[in-house]
Amino acid sequence: MLYSGFMTISVAVSGASGYAGGEVLRLLAGHPNVTIGAITAHSNAGSRLGELQPHLHGLASRILEDTTVENLSGHDVVFLALPHGASAEIAAQLPEGTVVIDAGADHRLQDAAAWEKFYGSAHAGTWPYGLPELPGQREALKGATRIAVPGCYPTSALLALTPGFANNLLLTDDVVIVSASGTSGAGKAAKVNLIGAEVMGSMSPYGVGGGHRHTPEIEQGLSNAAGEPVTVSFTPTLVPMSRGILTTATAKVGHGVTEAELRQAWTDAYDDEPFVHLLPEGQWPTTKSVQGSNHAVMQLAFDAHTGRVIVTCAIDNLTKGTAGGAVQSMNIALGLDETAGLNLQGVAP
Amino acid sequence: MLYSGFMTISVAVSGASGYAGGEVLRLLAGHPNVTIGAITAHSNAGSRLGELQPHLHGLASRILEDTTVENLSGHDVVFLALPHGASAEIAAQLPEGTVVIDAGADHRLQDAAAWEKFYGSAHAGTWPYGLPELPGQREALKGATRIAVPGCYPTSALLALTPGFANNLLLTDDVVIVSASGTSGAGKAAKVNLIGAEVMGSMSPYGVGGGHRHTPEIEQGLSNAAGEPVTVSFTPTLVPMSRGILTTATAKVGHGVTEAELRQAWTDAYDDEPFVHLLPEGQWPTTKSVQGSNHAVMQLAFDAHTGRVIVTCAIDNLTKGTAGGAVQSMNIALGLDETAGLNLQGVAP
Amino acid sequence: MLYSGFMTISVAVSGASGYAGGEVLRLLAGHPNVTIGAITAHSNAGSRLGELQPHLHGLASRILEDTTVENLSGHDVVFLALPHGASAEIAAQLPEGTVVIDAGADHRLQDAAAWEKFYGSAHAGTWPYGLPELPGQREALKGATRIAVPGCYPTSALLALTPGFANNLLLTDDVVIVSASGTSGAGKAAKVNLIGAEVMGSMSPYGVGGGHRHTPEIEQGLSNAAGEPVTVSFTPTLVPMSRGILTTATAKVGHGVTEAELRQAWTDAYDDEPFVHLLPEGQWPTTKSVQGSNHAVMQLAFDAHTGRVIVTCAIDNLTKGTAGGAVQSMNIALGLDETAGLNLQGVAP
Amino acid sequence: MLYSGFMTISVAVSGASGYAGGEVLRLLAGHPNVTIGAITAHSNAGSRLGELQPHLHGLASRILEDTTVENLSGHDVVFLALPHGASAEIAAQLPEGTVVIDAGADHRLQDAAAWEKFYGSAHAGTWPYGLPELPGQREALKGATRIAVPGCYPTSALLALTPGFANNLLLTDDVVIVSASGTSGAGKAAKVNLIGAEVMGSMSPYGVGGGHRHTPEIEQGLSNAAGEPVTVSFTPTLVPMSRGILTTATAKVGHGVTEAELRQAWTDAYDDEPFVHLLPEGQWPTTKSVQGSNHAVMQLAFDAHTGRVIVTCAIDNLTKGTAGGAVQSMNIALGLDETAGLNLQGVAP
Repeated sequence: MLYSGFMTISVAVSGASGYAGGEVLRLLAGHPNVTIGAITAHSNAGSRLGELQPHLHGLASRILEDTTVENLSGHDVVFLALPHGASAEIAAQLPEGTVVIDAGADHRLQDAAAWEKFYGSAHAGTWPYGLPELPGQREALKGATRIAVPGCYPTSALLALTPGFANNLLLTDDVVIVSASGTSGAGKAAKVNLIGAEVMGSMSPYGVGGGHRHTPEIEQGLSNAAGEPVTVSFTPTLVPMSRGILTTATAKVGHGVTEAELRQAWTDAYDDEPFVHLLPEGQWPTTKSVQGSNHAVMQLAFDAHTGRVIVTCAIDNLTKGTAGGAVQSMNIALGLDETAGLNLQGVAP
Repeated sequence: MLYSGFMTISVAVSGASGYAGGEVLRLLAGHPNVTIGAITAHSNAGSRLGELQPHLHGLASRILEDTTVENLSGHDVVFLALPHGASAEIAAQLPEGTVVIDAGADHRLQDAAAWEKFYGSAHAGTWPYGLPELPGQREALKGATRIAVPGCYPTSALLALTPGFANNLLLTDDVVIVSASGTSGAGKAAKVNLIGAEVMGSMSPYGVGGGHRHTPEIEQGLSNAAGEPVTVSFTPTLVPMSRGILTTATAKVGHGVTEAELRQAWTDAYDDEPFVHLLPEGQWPTTKSVQGSNHAVMQLAFDAHTGRVIVTCAIDNLTKGTAGGAVQSMNIALGLDETAGLNLQGVAP
Repeated sequence: MLYSGFMTISVAVSGASGYAGGEVLRLLAGHPNVTIGAITAHSNAGSRLGELQPHLHGLASRILEDTTVENLSGHDVVFLALPHGASAEIAAQLPEGTVVIDAGADHRLQDAAAWEKFYGSAHAGTWPYGLPELPGQREALKGATRIAVPGCYPTSALLALTPGFANNLLLTDDVVIVSASGTSGAGKAAKVNLIGAEVMGSMSPYGVGGGHRHTPEIEQGLSNAAGEPVTVSFTPTLVPMSRGILTTATAKVGHGVTEAELRQAWTDAYDDEPFVHLLPEGQWPTTKSVQGSNHAVMQLAFDAHTGRVIVTCAIDNLTKGTAGGAVQSMNIALGLDETAGLNLQGVAP
Repeated sequence: MLYSGFMTISVAVSGASGYAGGEVLRLLAGHPNVTIGAITAHSNAGSRLGELQPHLHGLASRILEDTTVENLSGHDVVFLALPHGASAEIAAQLPEGTVVIDAGADHRLQDAAAWEKFYGSAHAGTWPYGLPELPGQREALKGATRIAVPGCYPTSALLALTPGFANNLLLTDDVVIVSASGTSGAGKAAKVNLIGAEVMGSMSPYGVGGGHRHTPEIEQGLSNAAGEPVTVSFTPTLVPMSRGILTTATAKVGHGVTEAELRQAWTDAYDDEPFVHLLPEGQWPTTKSVQGSNHAVMQLAFDAHTGRVIVTCAIDNLTKGTAGGAVQSMNIALGLDETAGLNLQGVAP
């Protein structure tokens, strides 16, 4: 069923006490076609939302319900912002016609073996992937009733390098990606290594050496674009800021490929996109310029000395990297204006 | 002239390369009744807005015009985000029917002597004060064609203490206000003491001892509420964050005044306000909960030991403290929905 | 027993996995007269120090022992950096000749009733107070074998206002103190409200209305200086930085007191102090200028309009506010050079 | 001439109002063998040091002299912390026996063509390189009277990868280095893009595509270690913190090289080093753990999937990356204890 721009859609949001759920609610609160129905949580059920998400002034008096199939049922759309492994069971019990949008990882990977290796549980199947800027992906999302929201790092990495692989401009065996994320990427978790006194003024890597769970997701997306396997070295780091990802992605370019061809490929890929922008030459992306918005900004440089293209891409990990991508995908799935509820500028300075 | 909710208003914004002007544009870009006309600057005239305000994705390709009466003319509304002293001359040349909203200080003070003492130039006259939550002020703004946007510190201080003075609950000679501001409050200025390496991990006071220009503005507002002169000790400090003000305001309560009476006065003042909130007991304001939004949140405590009420109030200095208050005032002046374009939650975490 | 500058003192440090204990170790590692003996913790006993305090490179391979009287015995000096209520029992079992320095609150308050009201347990008695810059306090620390290290907020507040009260220049019933602390002041605790994503870009008050436990400690110190009871309104706030306290302290000055008299009193109080400095006029204190050092810097302003003196004072909460004050007190108690091990500049930018 | 541990050396520091000069002074103020003589600056000559570097409490009353050969003459050691291109002329006029330590880039590069390409001026010659942990470099520094302090990024990058190249374990044509620096790395310069409101909460790249001046310096160091040319893709980024560099450096390992061989090479290289540490497996470097100290910490991971080693290395850009390396080199040159004045732990949290 496709909705017209004047219809109102009822939406339930689970995991509403966490960062992903909170950001989904922030965006939906400004969405012209949405009525927010059930807002659910697990251990925080029964609390006022205003206590847990004091920035959601318009929803402050709402009471969190328990995350159950019963509470989530009866809505046109259900957002799942749950720990990995929790969404498959709930989704299976929701009607097929309900649009279920999973902000978790459960349904992103096509390769069951990769899923099992990195997540350690049984593969739950693959859903349409909510990154409409990838080739063919916008079409795949139209009318979808199950959508897997991409990971935050993969969103930035795939936006950064897909035009090169989709146009056979890059070598597939020499991709290096280093990403830096604000600490909200580590979740709203009470851990000593995440407390402010530890984090402020400090930067650190983690999951180095191929161990991060987003590695197979990045390789999957780039391999799909290239039409052959792409191998990726991915290193994530944490930076002293609340939000934002800056990804530095580099690959060797094919023999004879020129800088102009590279620039053209990226321009063609994103020129008509409402949310993804190749910046004018000479301007570098900053995470603050996309803070709180669904935009992604990037710049491309060709290093003739090493034969590499380097693409730097900035997104807000919680918006384009999670909740914004989720709402954008919902809009496409339902036939709404793709930018509905997402017409937000970055919040800067 | 009052506008209906379906009309479209043309707006010009001057000072668009600075923080106040940028924030006005951020809000107007999402305002349902506004068409953004001329965007002007001084030394940056001729530049692409996307270079100077890269977070304003929807306006990135707009070119900054020169700040002249000619360029600003022909709009329904003109926002002035200019250095102190620059707005009077321009305003005088704009038609009387044009709504001119001055984000600078020029037309805030009623007392010409106070203006001359703190700003060192001739007094330019007093315009209706754009803080509609003050007693009688919303009425005063309806139909106004000249509006003085309050200073950021005064916004937080007046919201914090006015209910007490308006209800004769506080002593007028013992008010102490200490405010902490993110460094955007110091403007987009290339000064060594403002660079990130100096600011991060550091906190410092300035203008201590009654020297800050916002002191007479705070005293004016509280005196108006009290109906007699109120004397204020005001100390501003800079905090390592980009945005946000946390004001701690304290005054001695009158003889026999109870905590319940205090709480009732603040509740009555703000219960129906769309943007100003006395938080539930036990919850403290945080600047992040209002980041990028037009909301103000506060909490009140009565200290029986010292006979003082302490009100802590958080706003975003650029939104409720500048551009949000300006847009809210415009909405009231024009008869639009007061919250139009301001229906934004805080951006957190 | 007084030690000569060439002797070596064996020191044990308990609570070594927390911030206070870690800072004591950081300073002792550079102390020319100290050999670090037992390093103890509670739940982290058995761990490598390098895991828990990775900045203490010189002690990285040391293994944390359990915090027991047995392990702490046999040292010349024992530092206790334990939760409130835990030090009295241990101290009672250590030999009288052992210098025991308690970084906790247990032995700071003279008034048992205040202790019981604010800490909710039986009063453990009062020890000499480790703030040698207070009148007479340096003498009181010489030869002491039990020392109570002041709280971090009281250190800054007492340094800020004591010269005024000690010289009868200030009114005792109208003191307002607002302090801002880096979040290390809240301890190395896994709490959601302290995680970096919540803290960065945000500022908030807590314990408003006279509820903070440091209030009676500040009143005690100022009352001792004044020779009569001083009443204090104290509001603490948390700021997005790891370390540092900026205190804004204000009181009404006595009738006829001049700015020159005020300035003279503060100058006289601190001119010969190695660690406490009244800055030259025109220069404001910054927390970064004292980061990691035992210095306190302050500035004084007289506001004739309100009849108030406003003193702003910056310290590092973990150094002068805790561990530095502790080491300085140890030096005095043992007859060492008061600055031994503390000859550190601030770490800036 | 080699100095004994009991001798006192007179030292002059130029460029004392900047970050590098300030950090040299901070370290020298605690150096047991140093007397600080002339402290010089250019536009700030005549100012009190306490105004410009308020964290240097022990030197606050010193007056900055003009940076002239005359003022710098007559000292055993002269530190030059001057803009690029300014040191050669001064050095040429100082006696040959004076130890001149240049914190600028002028004398780092061996290849005159690379110098001219990246710095745009005539090559000033090459001095011994002040990174004693490189193979053979400690010997080269003994007795040296002219020393080029390495760049901050090269310090971290060369420490990270040299053991691999020195032992022929890595391929030379596939090195990718992404470094993140605190904004003090951009200098104490009044630029709008560096002000705190812009920097906090934001991250951005710059000099992408091989354009950063440290690229040839990194290639030079790795090529020297490898004995053949090494090509490096280097991308620097700025992170919202004052100090610290985290470098992620990756290269393909040679055919058949095992993880154990890699780990052994790094262990052998640094096991006896006082300031450079390969962390125990499972522990990641953090910039805060080295803040204000001369230490470098790193971790190594082997990614069998991509055949890459990834080394992450944290230093303080101003200490080990500039002033600490300079003082360490001075100590070696003069025959002092290499760690004199550098026995500082990191300042954390």
